[in-house]
Amino acid sequence: MVTQKNQNNPIIDTDIHHNISSVYDLVPYLPDQWKRYILDYNWKPEERSVPFYQIRKATKYRMDTVPEDGSTPGSNYQLLKEQLLDKYNINYGILTGWFYEATVAKGWYEFATARASAYNDYTIEHWLEKDKRLLGSITVPKDPQAAVREIERVGSHPQMVQVMLGISDFAWGDPYFHPIFEAAYKHGLAVSMHLSSSISAQGGDFLRYYVAWRSLHPQAYMTQVISLITNGVFDKFPDLKVALVEGGFEWVPFMMHRMDSAYKGLRQETPWVKRMPSDYFRDNLKFTTQPWDDLTAHQFLNVIDMMGSEEMIMFATDYPHWDFDSPERTLPKQIPDSLRQKIMYENARDFYSLK
Amino acid sequence: MVTQKNQNNPIIDTDIHHNISSVYDLVPYLPDQWKRYILDYNWKPEERSVPFYQIRKATKYRMDTVPEDGSTPGSNYQLLKEQLLDKYNINYGILTGWFYEATVAKGWYEFATARASAYNDYTIEHWLEKDKRLLGSITVPKDPQAAVREIERVGSHPQMVQVMLGISDFAWGDPYFHPIFEAAYKHGLAVSMHLSSSISAQGGDFLRYYVAWRSLHPQAYMTQVISLITNGVFDKFPDLKVALVEGGFEWVPFMMHRMDSAYKGLRQETPWVKRMPSDYFRDNLKFTTQPWDDLTAHQFLNVIDMMGSEEMIMFATDYPHWDFDSPERTLPKQIPDSLRQKIMYENARDFYSLK
Repeated sequence: MVTQKNQNNPIIDTDIHHNISSVYDLVPYLPDQWKRYILDYNWKPEERSVPFYQIRKATKYRMDTVPEDGSTPGSNYQLLKEQLLDKYNINYGILTGWFYEATVAKGWYEFATARASAYNDYTIEHWLEKDKRLLGSITVPKDPQAAVREIERVGSHPQMVQVMLGISDFAWGDPYFHPIFEAAYKHGLAVSMHLSSSISAQGGDFLRYYVAWRSLHPQAYMTQVISLITNGVFDKFPDLKVALVEGGFEWVPFMMHRMDSAYKGLRQETPWVKRMPSDYFRDNLKFTTQPWDDLTAHQFLNVIDMMGSEEMIMFATDYPHWDFDSPERTLPKQIPDSLRQKIMYENARDFYSLK
Repeated sequence: MVTQKNQNNPIIDTDIHHNISSVYDLVPYLPDQWKRYILDYNWKPEERSVPFYQIRKATKYRMDTVPEDGSTPGSNYQLLKEQLLDKYNINYGILTGWFYEATVAKGWYEFATARASAYNDYTIEHWLEKDKRLLGSITVPKDPQAAVREIERVGSHPQMVQVMLGISDFAWGDPYFHPIFEAAYKHGLAVSMHLSSSISAQGGDFLRYYVAWRSLHPQAYMTQVISLITNGVFDKFPDLKVALVEGGFEWVPFMMHRMDSAYKGLRQETPWVKRMPSDYFRDNLKFTTQPWDDLTAHQFLNVIDMMGSEEMIMFATDYPHWDFDSPERTLPKQIPDSLRQKIMYENARDFYSLK
């Protein structure tokens, strides 16, 4: 399916935030019981209110991604096609969406389940069916049994490639959630994790400034990775693949070394973890490039060297957010072509088993 | 004061956990009001109970550090002198102690203040006065005004070199705590931060396994560093020096790049932060070697290269804990002598303004 135009420098973008223009877009896909909450009672998704939202709201999106009708950035297929897929000759674009609130919501799981299903149906009809280059993520509720049902409902759609687990203040490696990984595994789907707005920093509610909040994002990804490994998720499902999207990658070698070192001395407590933690990192985990922390080629090659693998990083733009990373400018010019090709295309192709 | 014996390969150990043999050691230094809590009511320091304590209690210490009378490891000066100071020809040993609970205790600040004072007096009489090689850390309560009074009370002791801030689930950079940094600064003291047993991981109470807990320690240090920098502590006190002890160092370059990158785009929200975050890392912060995460010389030199500084790391043993790092074996043999000397001695000498 690689286009003629871009056979030489193929690209897969692993983090595209398509969106609904408003919550009314979900109404056609909701059972009557839940339609009423939106149409009659004016239900809106909750956003955690923290001070930096004042500054974040004004600057969340690239200014040119607002459609002409003023609707939400990322909600217009034609504009996304022009500004991203066609402009950069993207071979595949992974839609990671926006609807993490249905996944991380506490309680009221029946409605959250209905919202997740509606969002998946909306994504299939309004996005996947319009463009074969677009690949989808299955939004699921936090309730494991309901999540499994949703994976079984839409998991066999040919353009659905992964289950999306939003990151909040709980750890997905908990045995309670293992049925979700099992269902993904059975359907040949990857799992992708992406931060939601409801994460706290280590230590609690310390999120006053956006610089601090952004710098602390990787903490939430560390918690997830450590949880998955120490709870034996990859021992139960050895070929399961998990992408950690938008959480950085420069911390990864440090955590590989740290966990290996701790495991050598302390594995008696987790006998179900059979391999060195760094083995799971290399064989089961992928990390994405955006936001690119201004690394030079020399620094970036150091990180790759410390990882001991060229296969752990996948390219992502984060379109249409303000900190969009362009395919043309993200990776430093001085890195070897073979490594560039792996990051821009091959690692994601293999991760998602694409042709 | 460098001994003849060790002029060629001098060593400063920046993390020695001297201890009391029991809480009764503090009684002579407590006001009558608080003596009663220990003598009459059997008060004991609280330890947070988490499952891995079962396994941790049996293995917390190097087995050979238990004194012959069976008392607490680290509580016997003669044994510590033989096993550490004399054995490895340590020029200076920084006592970081054990009494973080007085610092991170929630409420009941009057008693916590009395305990901190008693512990400091015990340290002076039973440790500092016995050996000029030993240098002390001032334990303070969390209440900033009481902490300032304690710094003023013992801060001019010639062997007291730093204020010790235990790390728990709050961030020391909060303006509420700035009087503590001001007092340290005025007295020419450094500040040292060390994890306590009361830290949670990002996301809350996810600390089931020791491998996980240990791998997550650096999160708590990240929270502190980001808090100090974004709250402008180093803009208020430009020469203030802060040591992050036992929290690892391999994550540091990643956080320098991450914060610089975030700051470039988002500093409008923190205009009081005048310099690039990585500048504060290089000029104001130090990190210690223990626990050494089994880095090879090549990997270690990569980390130093990514830091852009050879002056940010100080050697530490963590005596008498089970994961003690020997001065003879910690740093890989293949690193340059000049770098080794900086880490083993010079960086700490400069940090603590020693001769």
